[in-house]
Amino acid sequence: MATLLDGRKLSATIQEELTEEVKKLKVASGKTPHLAAILVGNDGASETYVASKVKRCEEVGIQSTLIRLEENITEQTLLYKIEELNANPAIDGFIVQLPLPTHISEQRVIEKIDYRKDVDGFHPINIGRMAKNLPAYIPATPFGILQMLERYKIPTSGKHCVVIGRSNIVGSPMSILMARNTSVGNCTVTLCHSRTQNLSDYTKKADIIIIALGKPAFLTADMVKEEAVVIDVGITRVPDSSKKSGYALKGDVKFEEVAEKASYITPVPGGVGLMTVTSLLYNTLLAAKKEIYK
Amino acid sequence: MATLLDGRKLSATIQEELTEEVKKLKVASGKTPHLAAILVGNDGASETYVASKVKRCEEVGIQSTLIRLEENITEQTLLYKIEELNANPAIDGFIVQLPLPTHISEQRVIEKIDYRKDVDGFHPINIGRMAKNLPAYIPATPFGILQMLERYKIPTSGKHCVVIGRSNIVGSPMSILMARNTSVGNCTVTLCHSRTQNLSDYTKKADIIIIALGKPAFLTADMVKEEAVVIDVGITRVPDSSKKSGYALKGDVKFEEVAEKASYITPVPGGVGLMTVTSLLYNTLLAAKKEIYK
Repeated sequence: MATLLDGRKLSATIQEELTEEVKKLKVASGKTPHLAAILVGNDGASETYVASKVKRCEEVGIQSTLIRLEENITEQTLLYKIEELNANPAIDGFIVQLPLPTHISEQRVIEKIDYRKDVDGFHPINIGRMAKNLPAYIPATPFGILQMLERYKIPTSGKHCVVIGRSNIVGSPMSILMARNTSVGNCTVTLCHSRTQNLSDYTKKADIIIIALGKPAFLTADMVKEEAVVIDVGITRVPDSSKKSGYALKGDVKFEEVAEKASYITPVPGGVGLMTVTSLLYNTLLAAKKEIYK
Repeated sequence: MATLLDGRKLSATIQEELTEEVKKLKVASGKTPHLAAILVGNDGASETYVASKVKRCEEVGIQSTLIRLEENITEQTLLYKIEELNANPAIDGFIVQLPLPTHISEQRVIEKIDYRKDVDGFHPINIGRMAKNLPAYIPATPFGILQMLERYKIPTSGKHCVVIGRSNIVGSPMSILMARNTSVGNCTVTLCHSRTQNLSDYTKKADIIIIALGKPAFLTADMVKEEAVVIDVGITRVPDSSKKSGYALKGDVKFEEVAEKASYITPVPGGVGLMTVTSLLYNTLLAAKKEIYK
């Protein structure tokens, strides 16, 4: 039976460390890290995510500012708002909660953010510097997974890591990170996606599987090698009448059967998801300390 | 016996097309594309590369300016020179020939180049945009390989591509490009490198192998599947008393035996190398036409 990679416990531990670090920074320099978040419109899921980010900031002593903009604002207005935040020395880092209304170009918005304040790590400069193994803000979910592998001391050098899904925010950066010449890295990495043929030929040979598809219970035990490390990034709402909410959250891994074979596995919920906000707080602290960029 | 992927013939064909395009641009807008190259010091190999770039520019009607700087110039002087070229509207694109003397930071130099004039595609913004499948200057060698696969109509979608070597200028961008959702792309990509264990387990299963190691005759027939496509980026000088120069150029592939098994193979010399300068000219034309960035 696999050991659980416990995102709840680990994010609590890191959160304690962050709280300490924030305190130290205040004592040393009088400075309180400050994260701003822009939320456009009232999408339910986005409201939940942003609220959780604000709350977690408070818990570690990071100051946060939530900027709400109407659903129907123009792209130009949003870009001006970003320029203001870029220019405001009181803001160490900021994020624009995605997705945006369809009349606004997410790419133009992301590229307008000063990369030195881009704590989501979505700006091309941060992606490019990450690919070149230079200091950069690493996107929150991949960063959370690296932290997990590091803290649980899971060996990666020379291992075969199979990443399933090539999204810009998880799969693609994850595949780049795991292949880099760094302490958590040095894997032989295979990136699989919708066009991959005979997916299980790859997964059956993998020492580490990172799956980010959004297809509940997609990865079954017969696709996994004994003692593999399985990281489940998927999180999908599935109708469940036994729950008060009417739904349950399901990962991409058929947990019960894969857990029998794996050496380590992340639960859903309680796994990778919780690490994501922690990583954002971590990046905000790095921004306040100017550790990535002067 | 494999079909040769003939870089000499293909680069000549593309060069003819570029010559036509340059003429058309002149007629339509009165504009001649203009590439500048900065060469610091007098390294023999760099002199050869830059001379070949200048010559090839002339052949297609692209204007070129070679800027020579002394080996012992300060980094600051080089950075000022770059700022001048950034600001000069007569220059469409420029390159700084690498390697630089050790007292100069290559990374600071690369990041100083205006990404809109970065026709080598080494600036983090171009790498990051490439990874996100946005319009970007693609580094010359990977771009040349894509052109080769496209022009020879080699199917890539759903194929397993194994890239060997994770350098910033070849292996790493190549692995990103082959996995993208584009017409030459959509491969399942495995990136192998110095830490990879049992390399031949991967290469034996590959439909497409791209090797960029700099180890002469490293890839042998027993490591390759029947009908594989083999792209050899390596080019190493090996002593050879039968040659007037005293050396021969050798690729990373044991050509004679691998050619027996492969469906397509690049010779060395006469393969990928010749495509590289062609790609630089291509990027310069794109810059003059402002096709990537306005």
